[in-house]
Parts: sequence; structure tokens; C-alpha cells
Amino acid sequence: MNEFEIIKRYFQNLTKDNKSSLYLNDDVFFDKSKKIVISVDTYIEGSHFVDFKKPQLVIKKILRSSISDLICKGVKPKYYFIAGSGNSRSFSALNLKKIFKSLYQEQKKYNIYLGGGDTVFSNKLTFTITTVGFSNSIIQRNNAKLDDDIYVTGNLGDSYIGLNILQKKINVKKKLKNYFEQKYYRPTLFFGLLKKLKTIANTSIDISDGLIADLEKLINKQELSYKIYLNEVPISKNLKKLIDLKKIRKVSCVSNGDDYQILFTARPSKYRIIIKLAKSLGIKISKIGKICSPSVNSEFLDEKGKKITLKNKGYRHKF
Amino acid sequence: MNEFEIIKRYFQNLTKDNKSSLYLNDDVFFDKSKKIVISVDTYIEGSHFVDFKKPQLVIKKILRSSISDLICKGVKPKYYFIAGSGNSRSFSALNLKKIFKSLYQEQKKYNIYLGGGDTVFSNKLTFTITTVGFSNSIIQRNNAKLDDDIYVTGNLGDSYIGLNILQKKINVKKKLKNYFEQKYYRPTLFFGLLKKLKTIANTSIDISDGLIADLEKLINKQELSYKIYLNEVPISKNLKKLIDLKKIRKVSCVSNGDDYQILFTARPSKYRIIIKLAKSLGIKISKIGKICSPSVNSEFLDEKGKKITLKNKGYRHKF
Repeated sequence: MNEFEIIKRYFQNLTKDNKSSLYLNDDVFFDKSKKIVISVDTYIEGSHFVDFKKPQLVIKKILRSSISDLICKGVKPKYYFIAGSGNSRSFSALNLKKIFKSLYQEQKKYNIYLGGGDTVFSNKLTFTITTVGFSNSIIQRNNAKLDDDIYVTGNLGDSYIGLNILQKKINVKKKLKNYFEQKYYRPTLFFGLLKKLKTIANTSIDISDGLIADLEKLINKQELSYKIYLNEVPISKNLKKLIDLKKIRKVSCVSNGDDYQILFTARPSKYRIIIKLAKSLGIKISKIGKICSPSVNSEFLDEKGKKITLKNKGYRHKF
Repeated sequence: MNEFEIIKRYFQNLTKDNKSSLYLNDDVFFDKSKKIVISVDTYIEGSHFVDFKKPQLVIKKILRSSISDLICKGVKPKYYFIAGSGNSRSFSALNLKKIFKSLYQEQKKYNIYLGGGDTVFSNKLTFTITTVGFSNSIIQRNNAKLDDDIYVTGNLGDSYIGLNILQKKINVKKKLKNYFEQKYYRPTLFFGLLKKLKTIANTSIDISDGLIADLEKLINKQELSYKIYLNEVPISKNLKKLIDLKKIRKVSCVSNGDDYQILFTARPSKYRIIIKLAKSLGIKISKIGKICSPSVNSEFLDEKGKKITLKNKGYRHKF
């Protein structure tokens, strides 16, 4: 049973009497009358991050991945709470200094504040981050419209290569190694887009599990299908270089998540506004596909227009 | 280094620019302008609960211990979020059914709702619970006044005996065993007192670590001392019986926390109101001591008026 089935089968029943949980079918909680948005995420060493040799980077990664849940909904995160369980080696004075420094930098960068948390002893290093923001509205899931264009911010795949380098599955030269590792640890969040996102997007999600996995989650309750063109999926120059050099498949790079880019759909009439907005903010936004009628099958098409079949659509937490 | 020192040394600095964290010197976060109160607590198998043989009881214990943080501040909890990490044995279909049933019962009992959470795979069973409530004000720590009386709700020590029975350190007959185990797993929260508490208490805390440990936390930034009379500290008839039978020291029972009773101080002029209130609500509230001038030493006095020296004032999470 995977986590989605567990949640569906047992816990959605606990949210019947109050809609704020969004039936646990979103990455956030939203109490409309109180104007509060909350997300909760847990990160485990060996699963959500490779190891804790660089605590200063791990902390940045997990904090960004947490606030990304709100940012992709058009909500400014304001507070974060960290509950950490670990041992005296993980929470040594030196590591705590590094964690503190990183959190301080992230607070300045994203204008967020530590609200509280907990620290307990455990031999398994685990963090749970609760993020809180305040907003009148959020961009909800399952609100795509027929014929919407599908967009994604930034580049995909860099983080996955970074992970493979850290796991010593890929070997590259130092400069490229640094580039990809940094992309793994410090995903670029398009904080500047946050305010405008609600005016352009019908529905949105951040890519944590993989392009197709998250797209399918985004419209999982809708009677719609999609077409995604691999050719249009944006990748960095460095990733392009590596793909040519190592004969890696682009499709596997972009299907493995952890990039925390925003995937959203918008009316075709918004195209010019979106291009203009991207230019004025100095960020990359790429149109990669289309929302289609349920009468046709969803398709992920390669450079030659051939249908791609994914073995794994993305990361799933199996039990 | 224990958790308090860790927090103090490194993380209080991250809360300088925003007072809502209450400088991490309270069990809750309170954003006055948004009228929101939040607490975050982590529970680890083997440390915060003995084992997971009775998931239905463990879940009740940790949820009550979490909402207790808000209740003791006079704040009604409204939402809870659970992040659980565990393996397929801990989160088997049978266990999930039991967890679901318990949560459902607690939701009805305390009128709270599941807001969200996360489930991830780990071989170490860990839960982090975030509790959210809405309130214009809270009963803050460090607000005791000179000559305040010190009160506690319910009975202390039952939970500690329950823990010792579960750990097979104490052996008692089945009926008593059941009584104490239930007290360990299902602490009685005085939910009915919640609304009135703000009108009587100057400062309050729930007893999770131990009577003296929590009292000292309650006034840790104040230039005050206290006197506590062991004789006045309320215990159950069953605990009295056990103390006589097993020659256990009362002082060690009441110094080990986990009872989630409310410890508060109030003006001496409130005495009659408090006694009346306790009667009308049908709950036990006992006056156990006094807040004194800093010019005298804090004292915990036994039945003969002799000063008690505690080796351990209560539970501390060591690293």
C-alpha cells in the first residue's frame, strides 16, 4: 500500500465534517474563514536527503521544499516550524551552528520567521516542517479547464542529476558536479512570481515527485486528459551537455521530481501576458503541453511525436 | 547539551524579528494579530511511548498531550495535523484501522478536525503533531504575581505508575494495572475548564515533564520563588493504595510528569471562585503552594515540613 492509498482509505473520512483539509487531496490546508494556509512535510535521512554531511545544505533543501507548497499556490509563507529528531552527532554544536546560519539566510531571503518546533532524541534523523501563510484564496488543484495550456517554471532534471552524483551513480567533472549538487540542495523558488500567479493560473502544483506524476495529481479528480511534449520541457544548458555526453535519457531526468518548479495551467488567451510577465520578472516559463478532452488518452510525446511509456511516473513513498 | 540549551543557544536568535514565537520560551506560538495559536510536538517510540502494541491507545495519548498545550493556555484546539513516519508493520491495515477509530473518537470528544499531515517510510516510528487553535489571547508563561496561590487540576502520578507497569518495573493486580495503564494512555484533559481558565489564572502550563520541572519552566524568566507542599499535591485513591502497599515515595510519582494536568497560579482573592468553579464543573482543583519573593529560596516541602531535594526534577530530552 502506498501513502496515497493509506490516506485515501483511512484518513479522508476524518475530514468529512470540515472542508479546510481540502479532503487531504492537496499539499496544503486552507481555512477560508480564518484565511490561513498550512502545509506539513516530513523528511527522512536516506530517503528525502542522502545524508547529513552538509547540514547547511540539507536544511535549505527541506525548508525550500516546504515553503514551495505554499508558493506554488500563490501564497506567501510567513512562519515555519521545525521538529527535528536526531542524535548528538547530527545535532552537534558545529552542525547546529551551520543549521542556524542556513535558517538565518533563508529567513532573510524569503522573509519568513521561525515560529517554533521541537527537538527530540532519536537515532534516525528526521525533520517535520510545518509552514504557515495567510491568504484570502489559494490556487486549488483540480481546476484545469479544457484547452488550457500547461506551463512549467525554470528547468527540470538538474536536481535528479545532482542526486545521482551524490549517490555516486554518475561521475562528472568538478564544475558540473558543483552545479548539479547545488541544484539538488538549493532549488530555485520563483518567489517573485507568487503574487501574479493567481491572476494567470487556473490550477497549480510544485513538482516534487516528477513531471507526469505531479501533473496527474494536479487533475486527479477531473475528467480531463493531457498532452505533454518532451521537446518543450525546459532543461538547463548543463543538463543538455550531460545528456549528450553520457547518453542519459532526457525523459528519465525530468520524470523524477525534486526540482520544486511550478507546474500550472492557464487559458490560451493568457499566453502573451505570461510571456511578458516572465520577461519582466526575468524568469523562465515554458509552455509544455495542453489539457485535452477525456475522450482522448493522456500522452507524453517524445521528440518524434511517439508516445512515451513511463515505468515509474515519479517518486512514491511505499510501505 | 539538552534540548533547552540547544534551543536557547541557537534558535532563539531566529525569532528576534517576530514576537509570535514567544521567543521559543513557551509551548505554543501565538500571532496576536492573526489570532492563531500553534503547537508542534514530536513523539518517538521507546521514548515518548513504550511501544506500538496498542496503536489505538498510543494515538490517543500523543494527540491529547498535543492539544493539552493549547487547552492549558485557555485556547480551544480546532485542527490537528499528523506527520507519521513508520514501516509497513507499524502502518499495517489493521493498525491504520485502529488509528482511524481512535482519531475519530477523539475528534468527537474534543470537537477537533484533522487538517492534514504526511506519511513517510522509516524503520523508526515517529509522529509529529501540529495543533492549531484560534484565540484573541492566551495565558502566557512568566506572568505569576507575588503571593499568588499555585493550583493543579486532577491527580498527579497515575501516569508515571502506568508507565512503570508497562515497562514491567512494577507488578500489580489486573484491576490496578488497567487503571494505571489507562491513566498513562488516556490522560484526563479538563476541557470544560478551558473557557474559564483565562478569568482565574495569571499564568499556566500543562505538566508534561514533572511538577517541579514544569513549575520552574512556568516562571523561568521571573524573579520569584515558590513553596510547594507535597501533602497538598493531589493523588488518586488507587495511587495512595499503591504507595502504602509498595512503599513507593509519593514525591517520585508526582515529579515525573506525563499527567497533562494544568498547573496555574491565581490571586489569593480568587480562591472562593476557584473552589466554586471546580464544584460546578465537577472537577478537582487543588491548591498546592504559593508564589514567594525572590529573597527566599524555592522549596518543595514534605509532610513534616522538611525540604525535599530532587535528583531529577523531571524528564529532559538529552542529546
